[in-house]
Amino acid sequence: MAVELLQSRWHAVRAGGGSAALNRRLYECIRDCIMDGSLPVGGRLPASRDLAAGLGLSRNTVTFAYDQLRAEGYLRAVVGSGTFVTDVIPETPLHAMRSRPMPAAQRGARLSARGKAAVAYARAAPRQWGAFMPGVPDVTLFPHRKLGRIIARLRRQAGPELLSYAPGGGHGVLQRSLAQYLRQARSVVCEPEQIIVTEGVHQAIDLIVRLLADVGDTAWVEEPGYWGIRSVLAINGIVPQPVLVDNEGMRLPAPGRKPPRLAFVTPSHQYPLGPVMSMARRLGLLARAGQSGTWIVEDDYDSEFRFNGQPVPSLQGMAPDGRVIYVGTFSKTLYPGLRTAYMVVPRALADTFKTAQSEFYRGGHLLSQLALAEFIDQGYYASHIRRMRQVYAGRRNFLLDQIRRWLGLEWVHEYDTGAGLHLVLRLPEGCDDHAVEQAAFEHNVLVRALSRYYIGPRRQSGLLMGFASVPEAEMLRCFQILLGVLRGAMAPSRAAR
Amino acid sequence: MAVELLQSRWHAVRAGGGSAALNRRLYECIRDCIMDGSLPVGGRLPASRDLAAGLGLSRNTVTFAYDQLRAEGYLRAVVGSGTFVTDVIPETPLHAMRSRPMPAAQRGARLSARGKAAVAYARAAPRQWGAFMPGVPDVTLFPHRKLGRIIARLRRQAGPELLSYAPGGGHGVLQRSLAQYLRQARSVVCEPEQIIVTEGVHQAIDLIVRLLADVGDTAWVEEPGYWGIRSVLAINGIVPQPVLVDNEGMRLPAPGRKPPRLAFVTPSHQYPLGPVMSMARRLGLLARAGQSGTWIVEDDYDSEFRFNGQPVPSLQGMAPDGRVIYVGTFSKTLYPGLRTAYMVVPRALADTFKTAQSEFYRGGHLLSQLALAEFIDQGYYASHIRRMRQVYAGRRNFLLDQIRRWLGLEWVHEYDTGAGLHLVLRLPEGCDDHAVEQAAFEHNVLVRALSRYYIGPRRQSGLLMGFASVPEAEMLRCFQILLGVLRGAMAPSRAAR
Repeated sequence: MAVELLQSRWHAVRAGGGSAALNRRLYECIRDCIMDGSLPVGGRLPASRDLAAGLGLSRNTVTFAYDQLRAEGYLRAVVGSGTFVTDVIPETPLHAMRSRPMPAAQRGARLSARGKAAVAYARAAPRQWGAFMPGVPDVTLFPHRKLGRIIARLRRQAGPELLSYAPGGGHGVLQRSLAQYLRQARSVVCEPEQIIVTEGVHQAIDLIVRLLADVGDTAWVEEPGYWGIRSVLAINGIVPQPVLVDNEGMRLPAPGRKPPRLAFVTPSHQYPLGPVMSMARRLGLLARAGQSGTWIVEDDYDSEFRFNGQPVPSLQGMAPDGRVIYVGTFSKTLYPGLRTAYMVVPRALADTFKTAQSEFYRGGHLLSQLALAEFIDQGYYASHIRRMRQVYAGRRNFLLDQIRRWLGLEWVHEYDTGAGLHLVLRLPEGCDDHAVEQAAFEHNVLVRALSRYYIGPRRQSGLLMGFASVPEAEMLRCFQILLGVLRGAMAPSRAAR
Repeated sequence: MAVELLQSRWHAVRAGGGSAALNRRLYECIRDCIMDGSLPVGGRLPASRDLAAGLGLSRNTVTFAYDQLRAEGYLRAVVGSGTFVTDVIPETPLHAMRSRPMPAAQRGARLSARGKAAVAYARAAPRQWGAFMPGVPDVTLFPHRKLGRIIARLRRQAGPELLSYAPGGGHGVLQRSLAQYLRQARSVVCEPEQIIVTEGVHQAIDLIVRLLADVGDTAWVEEPGYWGIRSVLAINGIVPQPVLVDNEGMRLPAPGRKPPRLAFVTPSHQYPLGPVMSMARRLGLLARAGQSGTWIVEDDYDSEFRFNGQPVPSLQGMAPDGRVIYVGTFSKTLYPGLRTAYMVVPRALADTFKTAQSEFYRGGHLLSQLALAEFIDQGYYASHIRRMRQVYAGRRNFLLDQIRRWLGLEWVHEYDTGAGLHLVLRLPEGCDDHAVEQAAFEHNVLVRALSRYYIGPRRQSGLLMGFASVPEAEMLRCFQILLGVLRGAMAPSRAAR
């Protein structure tokens, strides 16, 4: 009777139409019969020859369906005896058990409260490459051949340890290279044991927040500031306290309020506005942190690219035994897709951070870490940075020329200090930067609204414009498009000059 | 007077001894003078020639120190005028501001409560390669040349998008390859849009837990079960409810208790004991989940390696519109250091998962994802799995022979079903598996104590023995060492046969 059952079901399938291949549809038809209990568990299926005859199909079609169902474990072949539905006996008919799709509304409600809150913060851009995407280096100028050669050689020689899980903290050789580089270039005071190589800055921040703060704790974040920190704080239950930024960096709030557990700062080049944290503010912050037990997280995301004046020393180097965790990344100096960042943690925390990193994330990528160490040690890293600093300085100047010519330099944000991969254009009061962002996006020009980078209600209107990855011809073309968008956006209030 | 000051400080430094090079020690000496305020902010430093003469050092030594301090931003050179301490004026003397190291005890106390709890769960092994490390495939047999060639070609052709941040969910081409593979090989019902490529299984679990459960929620976990899930649950504030496993997989607890928000299961091959979840239990679990709104997470970590009998279908394929999130990984089929896993989420959750993934972790590695897709599509993946299945079957049989010969097959855990990369040896009552693990480790033989995989107090004593990455000669040698250790461990109670 299995043949009759399958005949009627198959008839219904054929009548229902559908574009899939016959063998696939037959497979699905038989599977449905098993799932809804019409073909009972333990029951015998017709011989493929018989079923083919019964359904008017080629034997190949039936064999395909049987083979697939056998491969998936729905059927079992017993030599000399036939093909059976898997014979683990269910307690209840299968069809009564199949869970049904929920209504869409109910589905949304199944997200966790923290998940909903964190996703509501979502700020990651829909596209990651093109004029004027901020924060993206020119990856086309990266010496891929050099790094590729190192990786290819290591791949040939690689012992199995390089291909397995990473120890917490990352590869020791990269830790040594980084410690040396950070001491020399960034005045960071550290030993290799204090370096934790991470899967991007987000993992570094996540690990810090999880290990040093509990749900309900507070953290100072710069206002405006990097959106990524806020997402990570939100999902970890930390309450961000936005702290306004001026031309000396974060303005320390008046004492007396409950001190924060963490303070996130970008002292070398405030993100996104650009000021350098003054010595006074640095010292003030260190003192406050020492008194209140706050951990300072120094995000030194693009300090390698300063185009005029002297380099700015790291905050960590001013308090090497203190309460500063230093975070840096290869995303701006090499390329973001590499997903390699690092942090320097106080000696007393290093072992805990390494253990926790293994537990929470299980690292790997040791082969690329070793290649990166060689890339640094052979001087390729420093020379790539030197080269890119010149390229970016040229592009920044070109963009400034365009702004000067078409808008006026007063449109450049007053806190700009000539560094990094983007600059901030201020928009006139009443000009909606979200609308400009959206309109420019529709013309394939990527800018990011400054107001996205605020938590509180007091927001400056402006645009982040990345110049690092945009060749000059492209900049010229896209700047004109942006001008058109700006004219349109300001038409109701005032025209662009 | 700066010369005199530096003379006296330098004298103290020299008297204090120390092994660093002179130029480095001078640099540190001057920096300390700046940091503690002895060299005032804005103050002028002696010309390098004068200081060299005053300290009895070569001019090169002084120049090095000055250059380094200038590079780090502590000093500023003004052409025709001299070298000055950076002139941002601090509000208070620097020395009063330097934070001091905390006493060690106090430092420990600065960890977050959740951090402390999660680190207390730490189970990651100190070494990741060698006989009999469980869960590790033989990475030396991986066709690195094939994958290497694909990567090298893609690297030459790579557009900038491949080197920037990844969109949430990962590369579309890999999503398509995976969807096809999972449909065919694992009876998973899915479209490419439902695939989320993750940085290992830990990231997949972390994302699920964060988006679907809140602090204080409960989750069923198998007892014994995978330690990594517990670490991720702990740091996210989820309370694990251990649910005992028998020869049909997870035993569903009696209804009536508060239903869990999540249920983690390994239906195809329970980790670490090995049973296959029976059809009755599967249906029971699906029904319970449908009633209580529980999300089932199916961890299909090594289902590709089943050496006898038929493949076991995925749980997800039994309830494609339902409440199952399917998780799989390349760590066992290719190599762990690749750090690539994937999950299949219900359609209604796919967009949220992608957004959240970008926000929390910012993905990258698109180039390797694309290479992996090509590796799959060209059939290399399937043929590598076929080859390794034979290799592992051979090694498993070899290990079983050793066990039969020296201990007796009754030592193999009774739930073993002939699959995966490890087997579990049961130890006699009273034999402390931690002690055996430790003693074996001291002989460079890696086994993992079964009792590590439990949460509750009722623990079986046993050893996880990975055979996949151990050639037969090595297995022979290490098994004899392990026998010696076992004899020693059981000497007080009874001797090994």
